[in-house]
Amino acid sequence: MADLPTHVEIHEEGPREGFQIEPGPIGSADKIRLIEALAETGLRHVQVCSFVNPRLVPGWADAEAVVAGFRARPGVEYTGLFFNGNGLDRALAFRDKLAIRGSISLTASDAFTRRNLHRSHAENVAAMRQHSALQLARGIPVNRIGVMAAFGCNYQGDIPPAQVIRTLQDGLAIATETGADITLFSLADTMGWATPARIERVIGEVRNRWPDMALSLHLHDTRGLAVANAFAGLKLGVTRYDSTVGGLGGCPFAGQPKAAGNICTEELVLLCEEMGIATGVDLDALIEVGRMAEAIVGHQLPSELIHAGSLDAFRRKAA
Amino acid sequence: MADLPTHVEIHEEGPREGFQIEPGPIGSADKIRLIEALAETGLRHVQVCSFVNPRLVPGWADAEAVVAGFRARPGVEYTGLFFNGNGLDRALAFRDKLAIRGSISLTASDAFTRRNLHRSHAENVAAMRQHSALQLARGIPVNRIGVMAAFGCNYQGDIPPAQVIRTLQDGLAIATETGADITLFSLADTMGWATPARIERVIGEVRNRWPDMALSLHLHDTRGLAVANAFAGLKLGVTRYDSTVGGLGGCPFAGQPKAAGNICTEELVLLCEEMGIATGVDLDALIEVGRMAEAIVGHQLPSELIHAGSLDAFRRKAA
Repeated sequence: MADLPTHVEIHEEGPREGFQIEPGPIGSADKIRLIEALAETGLRHVQVCSFVNPRLVPGWADAEAVVAGFRARPGVEYTGLFFNGNGLDRALAFRDKLAIRGSISLTASDAFTRRNLHRSHAENVAAMRQHSALQLARGIPVNRIGVMAAFGCNYQGDIPPAQVIRTLQDGLAIATETGADITLFSLADTMGWATPARIERVIGEVRNRWPDMALSLHLHDTRGLAVANAFAGLKLGVTRYDSTVGGLGGCPFAGQPKAAGNICTEELVLLCEEMGIATGVDLDALIEVGRMAEAIVGHQLPSELIHAGSLDAFRRKAA
Repeated sequence: MADLPTHVEIHEEGPREGFQIEPGPIGSADKIRLIEALAETGLRHVQVCSFVNPRLVPGWADAEAVVAGFRARPGVEYTGLFFNGNGLDRALAFRDKLAIRGSISLTASDAFTRRNLHRSHAENVAAMRQHSALQLARGIPVNRIGVMAAFGCNYQGDIPPAQVIRTLQDGLAIATETGADITLFSLADTMGWATPARIERVIGEVRNRWPDMALSLHLHDTRGLAVANAFAGLKLGVTRYDSTVGGLGGCPFAGQPKAAGNICTEELVLLCEEMGIATGVDLDALIEVGRMAEAIVGHQLPSELIHAGSLDAFRRKAA
C-alpha cells in the first residue's frame, strides 16, 4: 500500500449525470436542493448541470433556472457541462457563479462517435479544433483532453491502448494548433468496459508516453467493477476521480437503458478513507445526501452503502 | 499483474444464501431449477441448501425436498450447510448426492457470536470442539476452519488482525484436540467491513503465521467494495472464493434488512476472466441464470452485470 496517494480530488457529477438520464420530470427546486446539500458534505467540485440541447436532453431544459437558483458555497467550485459554442455561451452567462473550464473532448471509438455525435472521428477532430479555438477566443482556458470509451465500446468492442494514445495525440495536435495548454488527460469508461487489468494497461501506456501529465478517471459501474477499477487507479497513483452521489447516472446514448450509473461517490469515499487517503468528505453527511437523491428520483439507486450505512456509524454504536 | 493466479475455484452459494433470506415463499421446484441451471454453466461447486432449524430459517424448511429433487450433474460437487449434529445427520441422509465436508466455524467477534448464536466465544469454542469430534466420529473429514466477521463487525466495530489470528489459533487447538487435519482457512466478511487495505493486512498477518495454508474468501457486497476486495485477494494469490449468482443473499442476522448480498458470481467471473484468470464458467450462460434467479425471487438483484450484459456479447455484435 506504500504507493497509494495521500489524498484524492473528487469531482461530483451526480446532478449533471443523474438528471440528464432520469425519466423524471424532476423539478428545478429538487435539483437545487441536491446541489446545495452536496456542497455541505466537504465536496469541493460539483458539476451542477449540462448546457445541452433541451430537445435531446429534456432533463436539462431548466439548466439556467437551476444555476440561477442555487446558493453557492464559498470554497466550492461549480461547473456546467457544454460541448459546443451554444452551450459555452449559455455557461458564460453564469461566469460569476460557475468555474468555466474548456476541454477538448474526443472518443477512442469511431463507432461510438458516429452513434453519439453522428460524426466520424475525423469530423469530430475538426469540430473540436473549432471548439477549442472558440473557447480560447472567449477567454476560457483549455487545459483538458477528455477521451470517452477509453476502455472499450458497446459498438466497437475492445479498444486497444494504442487507440487511446492516438486519440490523445489527436487532442494534443488540436491543442498545438489552437494554442491550448493541456495539463490533464481525463479517461472515461463510458460504457463500463474497464477492468483493473485494463486500467493498468491503458494508464501504463499513457504514462510511458506522457510521464508528467495529470490523469483523471471517469468510471461507470455498468458491470459492477467500478470500485475495483478505482482501486487499481489509486494503486497507480491516480488522484482525480469523477463520481456521482448514490451512483446516479448512466449513459443515455449507449443503448443500455437499465445500465447502472457512475461510480458511486459514497463508495469511492469509503474506499479511500478506509485506506488512509483523504477525500475531505464527511461520509455520513454524504450518505444522507445519497438518500435524499434516492427520494428525489423516486426509485432505488445503485449505491449499496446508502442502504447499509457507514462503518463509522456502526463504530460509534459499538464503542 | 505478474503475481496473479492462473485460475480460481469458485464456490457458488446462491441457492443456500439466497433462499435463506428471501421472504418468499419460494417453491422447491424453483430452487431445484436454479441449482440445475447453475451446474450447467461450468461451476464445479454448488452449495444447494442449509440444514438449519426451519423455525429459525423457514426458507430452508424444504432442504430435504430440494436435495432429493435436483438432478446431479457429474463432475459438479454439491454441498449443504450444517452447524450442528442435527444438521449433519440430515446431510448424511444424502451422502450419495452431497459432498459432506466438516468444518470448525468460529467468529472473530464475540459480540456477533452472542447475537447470532446466543453464546460467548468460549462457549462457541466448546460447542465446536464437540461438533468437530462428532463430525470425525461420523467419518466426515474436518479440514476447514471458518472465521466469520474476520474484517469487522456491526456490533463490535473494527476487528484487529490479531483477533483473527487468535480465532484461528482457537480453531487449530480444537483441531489438535479432536484429531482434525486442517488444510483451509476461510475468512468471511460477514457484515461488509472489508476494504482492499484490510484484506491485505489480515491476509498478510495470516500468511506470516501460516505461510502454506490455503485461504478462501467469503465476501459480502454490503458497502459496494466486494469486487475491489476480491481483486485485492487475487493480487495476493488467493485462489478460492465463495459467491452467489445475481448477488443473492445477505446476512439475516446482522441487523441490516436492506443490505446487499454476497459478491456476485457473474461480476467475480468477469473480473477474473478479463484478467486472464480461468474460472471454468461460461459467463453468458451464468448471466442467463442470474436473470432466472431474479425472476424466481421476483425483485431486482444487486448484480449490475446481469442487467448490462457481458462484454463478449457486445464483442460478438461489434465484430
